Amino acid sequence: MTEKIALTPATHTTPPAKFSHGVKKGNILQVAGQVGFLPAEEGKAPTPAGPTLREQTLQTFANVKAILEEGGATWDDVMMMRVYLTDVDHFAEMNEIYNSYFEEQGLKAPASARTTVYVGLPKGLLIEIDALAVLS
Amino acid sequence: MTEKIALTPATHTTPPAKFSHGVKKGNILQVAGQVGFLPAEEGKAPTPAGPTLREQTLQTFANVKAILEEGGATWDDVMMMRVYLTDVDHFAEMNEIYNSYFEEQGLKAPASARTTVYVGLPKGLLIEIDALAVLS
Amino acid sequence: MTEKIALTPATHTTPPAKFSHGVKKGNILQVAGQVGFLPAEEGKAPTPAGPTLREQTLQTFANVKAILEEGGATWDDVMMMRVYLTDVDHFAEMNEIYNSYFEEQGLKAPASARTTVYVGLPKGLLIEIDALAVLS
Repeated sequence: MTEKIALTPATHTTPPAKFSHGVKKGNILQVAGQVGFLPAEEGKAPTPAGPTLREQTLQTFANVKAILEEGGATWDDVMMMRVYLTDVDHFAEMNEIYNSYFEEQGLKAPASARTTVYVGLPKGLLIEIDALAVLS
Repeated sequence: MTEKIALTPATHTTPPAKFSHGVKKGNILQVAGQVGFLPAEEGKAPTPAGPTLREQTLQTFANVKAILEEGGATWDDVMMMRVYLTDVDHFAEMNEIYNSYFEEQGLKAPASARTTVYVGLPKGLLIEIDALAVLS
Repeated sequence: MTEKIALTPATHTTPPAKFSHGVKKGNILQVAGQVGFLPAEEGKAPTPAGPTLREQTLQTFANVKAILEEGGATWDDVMMMRVYLTDVDHFAEMNEIYNSYFEEQGLKAPASARTTVYVGLPKGLLIEIDALAVLS
């Protein structure tokens, strides 16, 4: 019997519905769609890290990473990242931020696979990312 | 050798192409994108449960659930749900329907992770959901 | 300890950012979003197989398949394909191409699950596909 556990970093705002920020069962860890919200503050509505793609992307990475760590995983365990942007013109800048970030993280395993598509997101949000990890 | 099996509930319309409504291999179960089509009736084209978000969402849940059950899984085994809406303005209502539905289902395990994005769907469809489950 | 390996077919262009075209860890294989780019030619920018949905879809299938094979998998191992189109009016034609292609491939296992949604893609690209496989 493998137990399914919720991964809920202390920094995270309460999800707007009955879903978990992350779940882990056996060696599979799934991170829910994360956006660039700053760490939760009691009594305050979720607030993006800023209006720019850079601010939101870096905060989104931090939010994904917090969930991975809550489940005992690292970026090295991530198999797939889905990047949702709202504007095709953001692709090049997102890639720059992406590359710098992951160079700084010092990955030991090959980089994750990735799909990037352009969708609608709630007003003010420029990026959303989710991730599937397989633990060793 | 782990066998891959198709999950095809009797209630489901034939897929419009060579794909399966669900597949299971080992402990991994994948549900294809489901929409709010009513149970299949011979000689009748697939018909949405109704024009409203509520009707379509509840029917979509029923369609996902039928595939999970066909594979011996329950909502508790679901790790990730991807919710595709066509209109950002539907988010709050979808969450209400989502929360009520899962409260009624009496989950024993933590809720699944989830990503919601806004995309185009075929005319008349307001929601599509797919799901990844890991069986115990 | 299960090792994560990158799957990089010789035919593939270098990804535009620090991600892998495919990764495999244990029995899980994830193919990154593939588009209809022709096999890489040194010193030449990535070039779509042609302007039509048919050309791009068949090339995208070839690109996904190359990654599966690089990881010792086949179409029979694929659990889920995500098809991203830019235009709802392409659905019927894509399904025809899809069906013919998979009939020719001579699948021995049930067809994969699938989700199709309509999103934005970079200019000139009409289709993107990614895939999750579970090896036997």
